Amino acid sequence: MRAMDAATAASLAALIRKQRVAALGTLREGAPNVSLVTYLAAANFSCLRLRISRLAWHTQDLQCDAHVSLAIAQTDDGRADPQTLPRVTLRGSAAEMPEGDPAFAPLKAEWLARFPESAVTFELADFSFWSITLRDARFVAGLGRTYNLSPAELAHAARAGG
Amino acid sequence: MRAMDAATAASLAALIRKQRVAALGTLREGAPNVSLVTYLAAANFSCLRLRISRLAWHTQDLQCDAHVSLAIAQTDDGRADPQTLPRVTLRGSAAEMPEGDPAFAPLKAEWLARFPESAVTFELADFSFWSITLRDARFVAGLGRTYNLSPAELAHAARAGG
Repeated sequence: MRAMDAATAASLAALIRKQRVAALGTLREGAPNVSLVTYLAAANFSCLRLRISRLAWHTQDLQCDAHVSLAIAQTDDGRADPQTLPRVTLRGSAAEMPEGDPAFAPLKAEWLARFPESAVTFELADFSFWSITLRDARFVAGLGRTYNLSPAELAHAARAGG
Repeated sequence: MRAMDAATAASLAALIRKQRVAALGTLREGAPNVSLVTYLAAANFSCLRLRISRLAWHTQDLQCDAHVSLAIAQTDDGRADPQTLPRVTLRGSAAEMPEGDPAFAPLKAEWLARFPESAVTFELADFSFWSITLRDARFVAGLGRTYNLSPAELAHAARAGG
């Protein structure tokens, strides 16, 4: 598996930073379950943060099994071949962030700047932040351009992106 | 869980028919893995069809465990609250379609009409059709508008859609 050049690394960083919605795969009674979530990546791509409700299936799944996968794709622009749409699969482990965590206040500010309509979730007791620590990634930059990436390579892409 | 009215059923049918890309959740070494696939729904929504390569991780996953989940979402249009984007989670079982299957020729024609750029996959020995027989669905029509659907209700939505 080849290394990414600077332009490819920057395109991965732009994809992760520009999209707002990811497909989250959780384990539900031994089978995969995929749902849509909003997310915010840490600046260094070490983790993704979610703000989810304990009432949602995916949160209940995470409480039973921390293994998750997320796919982030460029939105379909109607191009002739949708197989050429850049997308990345991320895998990692989910952990709930306690409200007393020192990272809570800055993350809340960052989250509200990105998702102002979610302010109501900070009034509701069933919502909390979860952090997905990333173990690896698989970036499909285009047809036949697939890169398997370690956390160090993700961090490199985070620095390469503007 | 309330029943869908006709307009909601039609919006689900339009979502499944208009989108081209789904997030496919498979089981990989006991953990979820989410990747992007193009799909074509059967007219009656009994199943989704994929055309995938044996060289791809998701196909190798399906050969080990047939449980899958797919999420299909309206593309993010930049609206204030992305949580209001309609999306559906489908769950079911995957099975490879043998080339000798009588359904192969009409499906190939339908697939090429939808994805003309995929013609090359019919020249390659590693690609085949897989059919995902749907067991249930969870449709989020908007904020707080979630519907759990049986195969019969999916078939009803397929008829409701124009």
